[in-house]
Amino acid sequence: MENNDEKFMMKAIEQAKIAFCMDEVPVGCVIVKNGEIIAQAYNSVETDNNATMHAELKAINQATKVIGNFRLDDCTMYVTLEPCVMCTGALIYSRIPKVVFGAFDKKRGACGSLLSLNDYEGLNHKIEVKSIMEKECVELLQSFFRGIREKNRNK
Amino acid sequence: MENNDEKFMMKAIEQAKIAFCMDEVPVGCVIVKNGEIIAQAYNSVETDNNATMHAELKAINQATKVIGNFRLDDCTMYVTLEPCVMCTGALIYSRIPKVVFGAFDKKRGACGSLLSLNDYEGLNHKIEVKSIMEKECVELLQSFFRGIREKNRNK
Repeated sequence: MENNDEKFMMKAIEQAKIAFCMDEVPVGCVIVKNGEIIAQAYNSVETDNNATMHAELKAINQATKVIGNFRLDDCTMYVTLEPCVMCTGALIYSRIPKVVFGAFDKKRGACGSLLSLNDYEGLNHKIEVKSIMEKECVELLQSFFRGIREKNRNK
Repeated sequence: MENNDEKFMMKAIEQAKIAFCMDEVPVGCVIVKNGEIIAQAYNSVETDNNATMHAELKAINQATKVIGNFRLDDCTMYVTLEPCVMCTGALIYSRIPKVVFGAFDKKRGACGSLLSLNDYEGLNHKIEVKSIMEKECVELLQSFFRGIREKNRNK
């Protein structure tokens, strides 16, 4: 039986698939409060031509408007890829208590892979972090980058 | 004689003073390309009730629109306070080559104080960093926090 974490990660994957169809690196996320999705977003860096348009930052901006407060207490973010330093910083300042991610990001992940912002006492907020459904999220990313390589080979 | 760095930092301080007058932590910044200011912004986290509304992130979004590209090559950011992890992440992804800041931020600064994102090879972009006019920028911050303490004492 599917648990709630998996149900919400499936919703994040749906967002990632929208990015995939737009030729964006497939990363998607949702923010959940009291069992309800209050924000959902996908990576649109290329489409918006803006390096800050990561799924997480967009979802935080949405959730902030929905709640009417910059403190996203009692919220959980589900995101298909481990958040980077920019997004983990935004999660810390938004006081999000929990992040559930899919794939680890060895190159840029700031929730334990490249570095762990949780280790810095000065930042004054700890995020509970766990990874689920890694396989599904990694496969989506691999499929995207395989497509890019094939396109480049056929040029 | 005032040099260009000082001239642009004075403009960043003007932005910080707008934040000050709005009861926001006084941080301001400008982004300069070819000797012209293409973006300017101040911290508005409280006013906008949004933890991502740091001066730097707002200015990057503006500059991106002005240039029509997420790569802010040949740009310099002048900011009154050392950028945090979120903003330094955004600076890295925007490929900004140079940041000139005023005050060091021992608690949250990601350009050398709390940590240095330049030290992480995986992030694939190095930012030239220097500090000028520290005294002026620190005084503005101290004056703000002194005011907060006095208000709290008189409550």
